[in-house]
Amino acid sequence: MGGVTPKTEKNNPLTTTLTYETMPEHKAAKRGIPPKTDFNAWYPFIVEAAELVDKRYPIKGMDVWMPYGWKAMRLIDGITHSEMERTGHGEVRFPLLIPHDLLDKENALVSKLKAAREAGIDPSEMRMDEVVEGFSKEVYWVKNAGENELDVPMFLRPTSETAMYTLFPLWIRSHADLPLKTYQVVNTFRYETKQTRSFIRVREIHFFEAHTAHVDENDATKQIEEDLEIVDNLMNELGLTVIKTRRPVWDTFPGAWYTIAIDVIMPDGRTLQIASCHHYRDQWAQAFDVKYEDINGEQQYVHQTTYGMSERLMGAVVGIHGDDKGVVFPPQIAPTQAVIIPILTKDRKNEVMEISTEIKDRLWKSGIRTEMDDRDVRPGQKYYDWEIKGVPLRIEIGPRDLDNETVMLVSRDGIKNSTAIKEVEMGVKNGLNEFASRISKMAREVHEKTIKTLPKLNKEDSGEWTFAEAIKEGIVYEMAFDGSDAQAQVIEDISGLSFLGEAMEEYRTEKDCVMTGKSTKKKIYLAKTY
Amino acid sequence: MGGVTPKTEKNNPLTTTLTYETMPEHKAAKRGIPPKTDFNAWYPFIVEAAELVDKRYPIKGMDVWMPYGWKAMRLIDGITHSEMERTGHGEVRFPLLIPHDLLDKENALVSKLKAAREAGIDPSEMRMDEVVEGFSKEVYWVKNAGENELDVPMFLRPTSETAMYTLFPLWIRSHADLPLKTYQVVNTFRYETKQTRSFIRVREIHFFEAHTAHVDENDATKQIEEDLEIVDNLMNELGLTVIKTRRPVWDTFPGAWYTIAIDVIMPDGRTLQIASCHHYRDQWAQAFDVKYEDINGEQQYVHQTTYGMSERLMGAVVGIHGDDKGVVFPPQIAPTQAVIIPILTKDRKNEVMEISTEIKDRLWKSGIRTEMDDRDVRPGQKYYDWEIKGVPLRIEIGPRDLDNETVMLVSRDGIKNSTAIKEVEMGVKNGLNEFASRISKMAREVHEKTIKTLPKLNKEDSGEWTFAEAIKEGIVYEMAFDGSDAQAQVIEDISGLSFLGEAMEEYRTEKDCVMTGKSTKKKIYLAKTY
Repeated sequence: MGGVTPKTEKNNPLTTTLTYETMPEHKAAKRGIPPKTDFNAWYPFIVEAAELVDKRYPIKGMDVWMPYGWKAMRLIDGITHSEMERTGHGEVRFPLLIPHDLLDKENALVSKLKAAREAGIDPSEMRMDEVVEGFSKEVYWVKNAGENELDVPMFLRPTSETAMYTLFPLWIRSHADLPLKTYQVVNTFRYETKQTRSFIRVREIHFFEAHTAHVDENDATKQIEEDLEIVDNLMNELGLTVIKTRRPVWDTFPGAWYTIAIDVIMPDGRTLQIASCHHYRDQWAQAFDVKYEDINGEQQYVHQTTYGMSERLMGAVVGIHGDDKGVVFPPQIAPTQAVIIPILTKDRKNEVMEISTEIKDRLWKSGIRTEMDDRDVRPGQKYYDWEIKGVPLRIEIGPRDLDNETVMLVSRDGIKNSTAIKEVEMGVKNGLNEFASRISKMAREVHEKTIKTLPKLNKEDSGEWTFAEAIKEGIVYEMAFDGSDAQAQVIEDISGLSFLGEAMEEYRTEKDCVMTGKSTKKKIYLAKTY
Repeated sequence: MGGVTPKTEKNNPLTTTLTYETMPEHKAAKRGIPPKTDFNAWYPFIVEAAELVDKRYPIKGMDVWMPYGWKAMRLIDGITHSEMERTGHGEVRFPLLIPHDLLDKENALVSKLKAAREAGIDPSEMRMDEVVEGFSKEVYWVKNAGENELDVPMFLRPTSETAMYTLFPLWIRSHADLPLKTYQVVNTFRYETKQTRSFIRVREIHFFEAHTAHVDENDATKQIEEDLEIVDNLMNELGLTVIKTRRPVWDTFPGAWYTIAIDVIMPDGRTLQIASCHHYRDQWAQAFDVKYEDINGEQQYVHQTTYGMSERLMGAVVGIHGDDKGVVFPPQIAPTQAVIIPILTKDRKNEVMEISTEIKDRLWKSGIRTEMDDRDVRPGQKYYDWEIKGVPLRIEIGPRDLDNETVMLVSRDGIKNSTAIKEVEMGVKNGLNEFASRISKMAREVHEKTIKTLPKLNKEDSGEWTFAEAIKEGIVYEMAFDGSDAQAQVIEDISGLSFLGEAMEEYRTEKDCVMTGKSTKKKIYLAKTY
């Protein structure tokens, strides 16, 4: 495996993320960091070199989370938990195993929806039948326990609708029980046959899922709005710019009325779906018989939504903010926010160490995750080591600084600022905030530059459609489009790209649909997707 | 299921644990709380009535954690995480699935140990062969994924030695990498065939496991000492008194040199093992080839330890502190620490509500998890509802209190104190601290009362041993013992109790061994165990 630090160079990466003694040298590894422009080489290398995961566990697509990576993930989860608390969601924890016979209800729904589709009744319901069909290809089965064969086979949850909606009817009786807002943070499992990639396509997924039930469609719609607000808050902390689209019908979650997906653009120009919200109307409620007594004493089906995210958030942070030197962590989720590098000279070593230790303690007390690296290696080596791990701020403290009663703050993007020791807390906080703004702005600029308007479409005499200019690699396209699914299919075919869907924010003024020429404000994104 | 609140009485228990609107009435449920003296009826009833779990998930022994119960568990985990951080353990997260062929190394060790045992070499190694033998009877197997049969069957981790020690040799190279201190908080799986019981005997277990590697036996021993200190700190927060024993050889964890187990005494007098530490010496290291280069350049096997705990901590808290009115949570892990009950009279309702809201905000700001219950039901009903959930402190605020500029604090054990509104934060904090001391003291007293000295043993003319007095139900016995395993077996047989093991704290003065009459300070505990 290319990305793995040679054993003999590797110190113990595990004892703690908090002291330098256990920080790996990564000398050999670092000398070999591929340039980020070679994203397919850079990404798998960096996730191990920065000690986020170890990919040497003997099951493909199931990585071991290392303390440094896991801490960052837990900090991301922490933001999610806060948002869930703010919005009144209760945290539950459902069992991992789901008995196969619970699928019967889904199967019944499938038959019904299949019939509806064949009769052309409701395109929004088209894909429900794929729940179970797609399903059996994707799950891990537990059919044996101990020395017994189980009466009812079980599977490892790929997501928890079936498990949860089995209990929802027991929890929901009347309108007073609604809205029911629940969530859980769990591991889910998908038997991926495609090539796996840390955080992005894995077989055991660190997963977040919120499930809600409401009195009616309108209240469920409000939930989707709240979900999107949560997405905004989270993305703000992570410094990520996203595309929010209503997925086309053929890419809507099975059983959903509509799906709103949140994508980021990775450095290779492919979009990565990092979150999605589904409005189920009462489709699942019908399948699972989730009813309530309304204010008039009538039985009604609830309307449901789900909102899912995963460790792909980590993949997005690594991919988007990272650079040729390594990972770049936004301060909010950086396991280490600031690292102190004492510049030790023979004559004033003790003095420098004393002040460094004092500053470390002061920063910890003011809530900044701070480490000190007093290893006996050159400062340049230390810089290198912490850069690869994406620590936002380096604090250099040398004899000259002491004379000036200052320290030097160097942010991960190379900006240097001297700050007075007596105000070091404020200096570091400002430094972190400014750094957060800069990487956020940079990510937004790259995002915007990567999106281009789709080249003009021409209809040839042969009836075939062609582009006036070639479709470029690494670009996400936008276009005005108001055509049919068949016309969408043509565009997908000739561009080799996928419809992400209709942007939540449409064009401000009307434009001509690229295919039909009709005036429309609908903005569609087209991209190569992960 | 007896313990379940009838549906029609049940409000939504899930939206949040934080507002009264969603708190279930439990009227019917509460009227039927069994007395705690009937522990086997009380316990399963109370875990559902207090909304810790819902047992109606269709797999036996796999409960759904409800928000209120899960929050308490996460608060317990929070203490553990702090202790792990304090002691420099790094948090990892290993995959759930373990390929069966990783057991080959264990199998090889098993053969070796079996041979050693047959040759009578080392009794401490006796049970290693049971790892794999016992193992196959206890695990859930994954042999199929999607539509494929897997080349190598996998199982759901029952514990993570095999998974982790496969990677340890990749992480440990030299003495500088040691000690390696890691832990994870995960779900583990055991195919229990015995009767299941929430938190105490379940099939999906919320689990904590620390795994460490050291340069030598002595350093590993120090780790065990640190583990026991962590146990002390945690038990202090939970208000639990424990018995720490070195388990007898026949109850030592497979492959361990020795096992130190931590038991609590449940109200029925049976002991519940809630934590254990294992000193492996270098046995597992030999099996998994976990070596390091020592200071002289020689290859050495590491010495390893593990330290495990689980959701049984929650079972212990529920069982030991609870009473006839419901659960009793120690303040440190109470999801709600204080609940404000405004006493609303017609004329001064607004005034009372205003002050109540103000006090709630002030308490939240000072870090106290506070709720307000302003439902339109009688105060007595509210008291009842919050008592069942074990909230440590109730704050009553009525018109008369306002006139006196005070509020009434009523702790879950019935102690009343008036406190000035202007110092309510301090009053509540003191109230919580004093409550914590009282329940901790009460638990210690009950614990101590439950332990008796083993009745005298007499050898009959027939050669059989009998007790001078009958062994009582619900009692844990202690005795001075320095006999052989065979003699221990005799005592177990005639008492119907199990050897917990040798107490970490021995008798201060020498006593006569109950069997041999030899002088010894060794104190052995005997109990019925869970």
